[in-house]
Amino acid sequence: MKAIRVGLLGLGTVGSGVVKIIQDHQDKLMHQVGCPVTIKKVLVKDLEKKREVDLPKEVLTTEVYDVIDDPDVDVVIEVIGGVEQTKQYLVDALRSKKHVVTANKDLMAVYGSELLAEAKENGCDIYFEASVAGGIPILRTLEEGLSSDRITKMMGIVNGTTNFILTKMIKEKSPYEEVLKEAQDLGFAEADPTSDVEGLDAARKMAILARLGFSMNVDLEDVKVKGISQITDEDISFSKRLGYTMKLIGIAQRDGSKIEVSVQPTLLPDHHPLSAVHNEFNAVYVYGEAVGETMFYGPGAGSMPTATSVVSDLVAVMKNMRLGVTGNSFVGPQYEKNMKSPSDIYAQQFLRIHVKDEVGSFSKITSVFSERGVSFEKILQLPIKGHDELAEIVIVTHHTSEADFSDILQNLNDLEVVQEVKSTYRVEGNGWS
Amino acid sequence: MKAIRVGLLGLGTVGSGVVKIIQDHQDKLMHQVGCPVTIKKVLVKDLEKKREVDLPKEVLTTEVYDVIDDPDVDVVIEVIGGVEQTKQYLVDALRSKKHVVTANKDLMAVYGSELLAEAKENGCDIYFEASVAGGIPILRTLEEGLSSDRITKMMGIVNGTTNFILTKMIKEKSPYEEVLKEAQDLGFAEADPTSDVEGLDAARKMAILARLGFSMNVDLEDVKVKGISQITDEDISFSKRLGYTMKLIGIAQRDGSKIEVSVQPTLLPDHHPLSAVHNEFNAVYVYGEAVGETMFYGPGAGSMPTATSVVSDLVAVMKNMRLGVTGNSFVGPQYEKNMKSPSDIYAQQFLRIHVKDEVGSFSKITSVFSERGVSFEKILQLPIKGHDELAEIVIVTHHTSEADFSDILQNLNDLEVVQEVKSTYRVEGNGWS
Repeated sequence: MKAIRVGLLGLGTVGSGVVKIIQDHQDKLMHQVGCPVTIKKVLVKDLEKKREVDLPKEVLTTEVYDVIDDPDVDVVIEVIGGVEQTKQYLVDALRSKKHVVTANKDLMAVYGSELLAEAKENGCDIYFEASVAGGIPILRTLEEGLSSDRITKMMGIVNGTTNFILTKMIKEKSPYEEVLKEAQDLGFAEADPTSDVEGLDAARKMAILARLGFSMNVDLEDVKVKGISQITDEDISFSKRLGYTMKLIGIAQRDGSKIEVSVQPTLLPDHHPLSAVHNEFNAVYVYGEAVGETMFYGPGAGSMPTATSVVSDLVAVMKNMRLGVTGNSFVGPQYEKNMKSPSDIYAQQFLRIHVKDEVGSFSKITSVFSERGVSFEKILQLPIKGHDELAEIVIVTHHTSEADFSDILQNLNDLEVVQEVKSTYRVEGNGWS
Repeated sequence: MKAIRVGLLGLGTVGSGVVKIIQDHQDKLMHQVGCPVTIKKVLVKDLEKKREVDLPKEVLTTEVYDVIDDPDVDVVIEVIGGVEQTKQYLVDALRSKKHVVTANKDLMAVYGSELLAEAKENGCDIYFEASVAGGIPILRTLEEGLSSDRITKMMGIVNGTTNFILTKMIKEKSPYEEVLKEAQDLGFAEADPTSDVEGLDAARKMAILARLGFSMNVDLEDVKVKGISQITDEDISFSKRLGYTMKLIGIAQRDGSKIEVSVQPTLLPDHHPLSAVHNEFNAVYVYGEAVGETMFYGPGAGSMPTATSVVSDLVAVMKNMRLGVTGNSFVGPQYEKNMKSPSDIYAQQFLRIHVKDEVGSFSKITSVFSERGVSFEKILQLPIKGHDELAEIVIVTHHTSEADFSDILQNLNDLEVVQEVKSTYRVEGNGWS
């Protein structure tokens, strides 16, 4: 029986893991797909480098187009990273009628729609499970396990670095800068942590998830992003006091035909399953109309988890090839993109305000909310140590639109009794949907 | 293109859900499989009953063999329940070369090995995703997503009723009998709750999980079972005090070539992801050598979650049919069953002892442990209200074998200073593996 032949771009830790898994699990792969799989060509930087995996010398090349143009290669697996140049490689591979498996979230977030269209046009598959939450088979689950359901909401902890930092801030009551330093020392955060802590990495993954879950051409620019660098210890301790846990949450929500996608520090009830996702772990919480609430938890990164996901994708592609159903992978966008406006986005809000401690100030504050028809779930008023003239007011509102909430903030800032609105956070997970 | 034709045994809430999904998602199914699917024959009890789904009259029958023997039926979906009689139906269906999808955990727990062998012999598939944790695609994940990994441990909250009861006992500090009554009133527990509260239902699911995850012919009798009916409020409050949450946990663990499978009330650290699985929800925590720790959370039952799982199985079967790889579903047992003996099973243990409050009693207790080389992680000694002559000692040991622990309990009971060993529980999740 004819083998399916793989071309591999990159032989770092993930690439080597992929080779190892393919070599070690030939029997199991054969059982699942019904034909063998061989590694035909591998792009490396250095032909002479000593490697952990055993490959014949003639398989290695330093020329990327030796892989992409090889007429014997059926599937190209990309694990070199990069965006612009790599995109061109994958476009060329698809145009040469190769199927593609990639672990590259930066690429898929920015050029995902284009690459999917290119794949479809060429009757080819493109799979990218490892691009979101490396070790969690979430794209497969959305596509297969929940294929006959309608997904209405996804909430994800999809960045390990920020989850590690927030876990430490909560547990050790340490300030952001101190914990960031610690995370950098431990290798959980990079020297320039911007992409992680400002939420960009999470935004990329949410764009990919929303595109697939809602079947719309969601772009990275559609994702509203706010990072964790402004979170203070006071925000964390006051939210804790009200029974909430601070997490950087990616939210993709659909109401009717409109969707919203955002990444922001969010408060979840302590008993919510996402609140128990600690340290560098990732989790994606999915709400489907038929299945109800499900959550998928696991490592967000790591070379072996990522390699495992890549091989699962390869198996899916090989099955599709033999079924003659390639080109339908992650079935193209079924719906026109239709983003909500701020007046369509409803959520509970947490806010912390410093007000002048004088008669009537509390009622002036609350009337700003009631004028907009917004009521409260929780209110806390406390003196502020060392500032007898001020009081701290912490509020959790019931659901309000972002537009109304923005007006409320404006009106609060205009009040003479308000010294400062210290912080606001979206609140999710009450009622859990 | 030739359609794949389904015969359905049962048209209750799950069966109707299956019909509805197939009818509503023809396009999506066609995209995935490459051919249409039709419902050919449906077994019902009453031909005249008004139903929520729209099916031509000639499709319905009250004769089970009208479905099983129909030469046009390719796949039989079983959602009628029952064990002995139903097993015969499915054996006959497989012998007529029909593929089978079933949601029947009782059947698969008892006759799973036999049915898998029968399927293999006939070159047919048998899929049973919905038999474990209805809405969680856990079997699919073990088989596909983690197919190139080696699973070493699974811990599951796989019974909604007992998790609901324990959640309430912890939250409301109410005794077992009271909460059971409440669960029965709310419909979360049956009038005769034995199968749930004594752990039998969970044991069935763990047998199915272990069989698949470890590729061994695990039988229901191999699963050691202890239920929740003996858990007292004191056990819960003392474990809480030490930072643990009480859960009914199914454990399937592999060390080298030997395995253990059990269901028992177990203490998990409060920060463990399984400790955050509340109310009637289910979750399965999987440890794989490559992927590390993952967890899958969702509804354990319900007609639409179950129907969704059944249709996912149907899609998998249809793909296999078109690939010509049927008969390999959940690849038969690769290994000889090899169960651990009590001297191979290692775990931490929690125990609560009432001792006479006299000089030297504490050291007599501890020496029983040190004689066996077992040391402590946590110890708590407290007076017992109203019993000046007694003291309460609560211990969490480091890892010990079940054989040693059983000897220790024997020796403790023989001590003159020990009034009673009140309770013991396995402790899991420290270090989380």
